[in-house]
Amino acid sequence: MRRKEFDMWQDEEIEQFLNEMSFGYLGTVGADGWPRVTPLNFAYANEVFYFHGSKVGEKMKHLQHESKVSFTVAKEYALIPSYFSDPEMACPATAFFKSVMVKGTAELIEDLHEKSEAFTAFMQKLQPEGGYDPITPDDPRYIPRLQGVAMIKIVPEEMTAKFKFGQNLKEGPFNQVVDGLTKRNHTRDEETVQHMQKYCPFHAE
Amino acid sequence: MRRKEFDMWQDEEIEQFLNEMSFGYLGTVGADGWPRVTPLNFAYANEVFYFHGSKVGEKMKHLQHESKVSFTVAKEYALIPSYFSDPEMACPATAFFKSVMVKGTAELIEDLHEKSEAFTAFMQKLQPEGGYDPITPDDPRYIPRLQGVAMIKIVPEEMTAKFKFGQNLKEGPFNQVVDGLTKRNHTRDEETVQHMQKYCPFHAE
Repeated sequence: MRRKEFDMWQDEEIEQFLNEMSFGYLGTVGADGWPRVTPLNFAYANEVFYFHGSKVGEKMKHLQHESKVSFTVAKEYALIPSYFSDPEMACPATAFFKSVMVKGTAELIEDLHEKSEAFTAFMQKLQPEGGYDPITPDDPRYIPRLQGVAMIKIVPEEMTAKFKFGQNLKEGPFNQVVDGLTKRNHTRDEETVQHMQKYCPFHAE
Repeated sequence: MRRKEFDMWQDEEIEQFLNEMSFGYLGTVGADGWPRVTPLNFAYANEVFYFHGSKVGEKMKHLQHESKVSFTVAKEYALIPSYFSDPEMACPATAFFKSVMVKGTAELIEDLHEKSEAFTAFMQKLQPEGGYDPITPDDPRYIPRLQGVAMIKIVPEEMTAKFKFGQNLKEGPFNQVVDGLTKRNHTRDEETVQHMQKYCPFHAE
């Protein structure tokens, strides 16, 4: 797998972000050439992305037509109004966010053992408190349910991450945005300032 | 434009949802056949979706290759653990969400007046409190900025909405999920219960 612009330290940050986010967006292409973007719960484990769904429908038709897919996970932290750094022009208005974009190949998981492992990874992520019997093809109650639903894995070929927190700002506007967020104090503003300081420790005049 | 499965009342709900959400996901296709999913701030006005970006880069290359695009906006309200309605099987685990999926054609806006209107729609949505000089090509400070950035509109051909709040549940599990959410009381759980009651006023045993 090709990784763009990040090192070991960033790998951990990316994995943490992927584990924190409960859903992402699958990009597929249909026989008519039209792309489709489907929001999906997912789990990232064993260096693949798992998602499940109905065995019929447009998403599955797309996957049968073309196994090259895209998967994107993003979280917006703060809208940055232009007036934080410019009293006149609208241009500095922007948003700070984290995003991870993956290109990969989608594969249908047919083997019931692998399918059970994938569902288990899913449940461990989205229902970590437990409260269900182990998912295994040895349990006859689970067999028809495992057979009835499609489980797909995306094997990533390329992963790109963008954590945008004002790294491109010069010191003056950077400090004005920090001040603006601190005064505004919306839900994620304090966290956004921490991210700005974490990801932009050095910013030139 | 083709609209799937919704009436006038739902149209208003969809527009309200699109105005509430600051960002969505653009699906495009590249010359290599690979789809791409790009998270973007957007505005929905005049029955089109506006987004802007750099004039170079992969997203623009995709749009030059293929103007058929997809745009999806989604919000997760609650993860519903399996044990709300089943003490043994993991299968009922699910998520409640709103999503709007659009298929349309992307068009580059070249005219500076139309471009100004699009940026104005953008700012009115994302910075409704104002705090900037009006965006117009009559203002010489704005002209180079308007020329330097790409503004694209998606003209929708088909729009599909899915507001999933347990409409498919029978009365027993429906009430168990309402009870579970009420007791759990996470950030959006109360709102989720209100949505369940709003969208599922009648549910058969």
